[in-house]
Amino acid sequence: MNFSKRTVTCGALRAADVGKTVILNGWVHRDRNHGALHFINLRDRYGITQVVVDDNASEELQKTAAQLKMEYCIAVTGLVRKRPDNMINKDMATGEVEVEAQKIEILSKCETLPFMIDEENSANEDLRLKYRFLDLRTGGMQKRIRLRHEFIKAIRDFLCDREFYEIETPTLIRSTPEGARDFLVPSRKYAGKFYALPQSPQLYKQLLMVSGFDKYFQIARCYRDEDARGDRQLEFTQLDLEMSFVQRDDVLGLMEDLFGYVFKRVMNYELPAHFRRIDYFDAMNTYGCDKPDLRFGCEIKDLAPVVEKSSFEAYRQILADKGFVKAVVAPATKGFDFTRKYLDSLSEAAKVYGAAFVPFVKVGENNTISGSAAKYFAGLEEELCTYMGAKNGDVILMVAHNSWKKCCASAGALRSKLGKDLGLIQPGFAFCWIVDFPLFEYNEDEGHWEAAHHMFSMPQARYIDTLEQNPGEVRGDLYDMVVNGYECASGSIRIHDVELQKRIFRICNFSDEEAEKKFGFLLNAFKFGPPPHGGIAPGIDRMVMIMSEQSSIKEAIAFPKNSFAVSPMDDCPNDVDAKQLEELHLAIKYPENK
Amino acid sequence: MNFSKRTVTCGALRAADVGKTVILNGWVHRDRNHGALHFINLRDRYGITQVVVDDNASEELQKTAAQLKMEYCIAVTGLVRKRPDNMINKDMATGEVEVEAQKIEILSKCETLPFMIDEENSANEDLRLKYRFLDLRTGGMQKRIRLRHEFIKAIRDFLCDREFYEIETPTLIRSTPEGARDFLVPSRKYAGKFYALPQSPQLYKQLLMVSGFDKYFQIARCYRDEDARGDRQLEFTQLDLEMSFVQRDDVLGLMEDLFGYVFKRVMNYELPAHFRRIDYFDAMNTYGCDKPDLRFGCEIKDLAPVVEKSSFEAYRQILADKGFVKAVVAPATKGFDFTRKYLDSLSEAAKVYGAAFVPFVKVGENNTISGSAAKYFAGLEEELCTYMGAKNGDVILMVAHNSWKKCCASAGALRSKLGKDLGLIQPGFAFCWIVDFPLFEYNEDEGHWEAAHHMFSMPQARYIDTLEQNPGEVRGDLYDMVVNGYECASGSIRIHDVELQKRIFRICNFSDEEAEKKFGFLLNAFKFGPPPHGGIAPGIDRMVMIMSEQSSIKEAIAFPKNSFAVSPMDDCPNDVDAKQLEELHLAIKYPENK
Repeated sequence: MNFSKRTVTCGALRAADVGKTVILNGWVHRDRNHGALHFINLRDRYGITQVVVDDNASEELQKTAAQLKMEYCIAVTGLVRKRPDNMINKDMATGEVEVEAQKIEILSKCETLPFMIDEENSANEDLRLKYRFLDLRTGGMQKRIRLRHEFIKAIRDFLCDREFYEIETPTLIRSTPEGARDFLVPSRKYAGKFYALPQSPQLYKQLLMVSGFDKYFQIARCYRDEDARGDRQLEFTQLDLEMSFVQRDDVLGLMEDLFGYVFKRVMNYELPAHFRRIDYFDAMNTYGCDKPDLRFGCEIKDLAPVVEKSSFEAYRQILADKGFVKAVVAPATKGFDFTRKYLDSLSEAAKVYGAAFVPFVKVGENNTISGSAAKYFAGLEEELCTYMGAKNGDVILMVAHNSWKKCCASAGALRSKLGKDLGLIQPGFAFCWIVDFPLFEYNEDEGHWEAAHHMFSMPQARYIDTLEQNPGEVRGDLYDMVVNGYECASGSIRIHDVELQKRIFRICNFSDEEAEKKFGFLLNAFKFGPPPHGGIAPGIDRMVMIMSEQSSIKEAIAFPKNSFAVSPMDDCPNDVDAKQLEELHLAIKYPENK
Repeated sequence: MNFSKRTVTCGALRAADVGKTVILNGWVHRDRNHGALHFINLRDRYGITQVVVDDNASEELQKTAAQLKMEYCIAVTGLVRKRPDNMINKDMATGEVEVEAQKIEILSKCETLPFMIDEENSANEDLRLKYRFLDLRTGGMQKRIRLRHEFIKAIRDFLCDREFYEIETPTLIRSTPEGARDFLVPSRKYAGKFYALPQSPQLYKQLLMVSGFDKYFQIARCYRDEDARGDRQLEFTQLDLEMSFVQRDDVLGLMEDLFGYVFKRVMNYELPAHFRRIDYFDAMNTYGCDKPDLRFGCEIKDLAPVVEKSSFEAYRQILADKGFVKAVVAPATKGFDFTRKYLDSLSEAAKVYGAAFVPFVKVGENNTISGSAAKYFAGLEEELCTYMGAKNGDVILMVAHNSWKKCCASAGALRSKLGKDLGLIQPGFAFCWIVDFPLFEYNEDEGHWEAAHHMFSMPQARYIDTLEQNPGEVRGDLYDMVVNGYECASGSIRIHDVELQKRIFRICNFSDEEAEKKFGFLLNAFKFGPPPHGGIAPGIDRMVMIMSEQSSIKEAIAFPKNSFAVSPMDDCPNDVDAKQLEELHLAIKYPENK
């Protein structure tokens, strides 16, 4: 196809270009026809340039210009000229100039748009995803896809400088389900056999360490066939990374350097040289969860020492039963009333996590107190307020539960809600490490221990001799990187010893035969001089979401599925031809109530 | 796990380090115990360092050293010292020094190896793939995986410098089979529905152009469920690239710049600023194929002008029937006899492609000729030799066929075999472009036209008005990049007009309904101001194979499948649990003769 090919982009022209004849290619962003003057804002990825069709333009040119509608794709040949002084737009990089059109070619037309191409798009999600090719033209999506590109490029540059190799691992692999479900890919050549899509390159990156590649990374596509829960996608991207001959702090230090570099380069944002390291139990006790948002305070306190002296019988009973009582202070906030209704909403938030109710105490002047729990603390007013660090106007909120985890989680829910509702969250990015997680969790449903992270993580040295005696006590060489309340990376030092690996499998209720069947190739590899190794895997989608201050990872992905695992644009998943199924030796068993 | 963590790598120590105490981590590469002195070559990714256990070493150290076997993973603490002058090894980067061991820790042991860890591995393919984690320790695989890493990094650096965005496209997409078969991924949520793995990001990269991303690339994993044929993998990696507002020469020029940059940086090899461009028909006529190896001559000539004057009735009849006669000269080669047996082997090579036999003429002194076809050229000896440019000692080989393609291919097979057998192939990398391919091919089996490349390629402008009249004549804006006889990239300028796209679908026997069902989302996108665009997709695996002078892409992939689409290491594809199939609503229909 012949067309006038651009000589400059729509973001390039400046005052110094005045007098040049140029060709621009782009989209009609805005189109204001004032009769005598017709202004066209022409847009491409690089910017917007104002094109003017003067009233003394040729009849043909005026005729073409009159046909233009929003999002027509056009080529404009014209003369760069200075804008009149009163028309200069300092908010626009090209705002000092405009292009006097001499010729306009319509490269393609545009039908009525389903939504405006603007900075943000307020259309509903399915409409946005059905017309994703147009949604991606909006300023917000353009910026986020660019940010994602720059973020990943910066990661690669940093790691390559540090002598990491990027190595591609296979994505048609053996199905070894544990944890989430595998996606399966039927084999045509071998009836009844399947490949699986990787949940992560975990086993392959460990094999690469056995191979001596020493420092590996990959921007890896991973797949989990999980039920829609929160903001998940069937496929997602992680920075997968593994290093040999390292201990925990080597991995943590590398990540601190990496994110420090990347945030400076991409966001011009300074991260601290080191991120706070918080013991898993401290995080649970202080923030009520293992992914604390450190952009605000409101730390949780153990209220037992005060409750024990109080007349709060219900709570004293919980303590007597080896249960837990925790409290958090809602700080007095200008313009915010702690109404009964609001306090009830806090109660609701905590109940989700197990707390039966949320007794509260309002602090007045000179440590006077009122509220639902005030009467139990008669005579302890000052001690309570001092212990909690609560001042006039603050509210002390309490939760209790026989289960430590549920008590923490309930208090954590209060803290999170207060952070948002009271506007306590400071701008910026708060990174921290959560370390020393328990290695095992008890699966009540199935009646056995299972790996809290995954079965390849190393127990901490002091537990190795006695793993089997009390799996619940064992702490692993495990670490999570948390940013602004999101778990953004998870990693561990790995096991590289056949016998230790087999003991872990057994504790997780895998028989030796089953372990051999599923993970035999890894056990086999460990017989041939495996090095000590460890790694981590930050999620790319989530990091980009956080960096661009969005609340859904769909905003960080060019073509996501919707919350029902469907792509409204191309309507997949879809039916396939009977011939395709035949070739794959498959028959469909529709559920009976279909 | 506690171990003495390296302070330097095994490739780092130099004469300037003498006197330092260091820790090395690595594998026992070679182990020579001379009684008094025990030499250990310790290897890691970075190099090899010689470790010495002196005979005055502690008993404990000597005892540990005596336990070492090949590929044990160890930590060595020791003192860097200068080697005796007569022991300096100039072939080794660390060859001036050795490390006097003070302490050795065994980090892990190694069982008897299935093959030696050496520069090359001569074990058979399945053994290499079963123990790929060890095969990857060999020098050759280490170099090739590193080359692949550096090659891809160089591509990314170049394209990012040129303002390309790398954008990830989805890999769970709609199945739109055409050409190769799709791999399918059953949906658990929607019984009877499937996602497909992409054969390439073709449609998504075109949508990104509609979205205005202007310059896109991706190092993309692609999937084709094809029958094993030659050197193919189920999954492969391509540099997928697309640009808006371009014409053919923009894409070609970019690729020339890209590969020029990359080959210089990674291989220190200078490519020409521009690659030869060869018309598809010229390539077929001159080299007998559309992926010519230009590292040697032996060009094919049309022999019709000479045959017409000859008494070669069989060939004259083929010409009279509008058939073709071609010839190629096998040059006299020192130490190579054109024996009857060898000439027969040429005949066999040509027969595969359709030539019934290969008449030949040996050239003697003063243009005398002998051989099976000599008698037909009586009186034309000088004309024949001059026409073919054949000299004393050369052999002129002829093929004929009624089909132009088969005649070309037969001659091409002769040329290829001569190139290899006579050692005519020069070292280096010969790039060229094959351009102006026909847009359609006639599918004899199905009785209709189909796209020679794919259905989204633009016909050249002069054919657009009359496409339907003679599809076989239509040339497309198509181009292939060929290196050393391999097709390494394929691309085109794309259609961006709904009506033109629909006409192409119809010519390829897709009804409007079918086209709408399969490609409706692309046709829909084309209604909203699509830009002119085009792209290309070089194959990464094949390029790395060529760059590392290998003959199989498996040598360029960390964990490939074998020729039967199986991974001998983890034995996939494999059976899966009945529960997994149940959840996916699938039943297996085994072939009856199982």
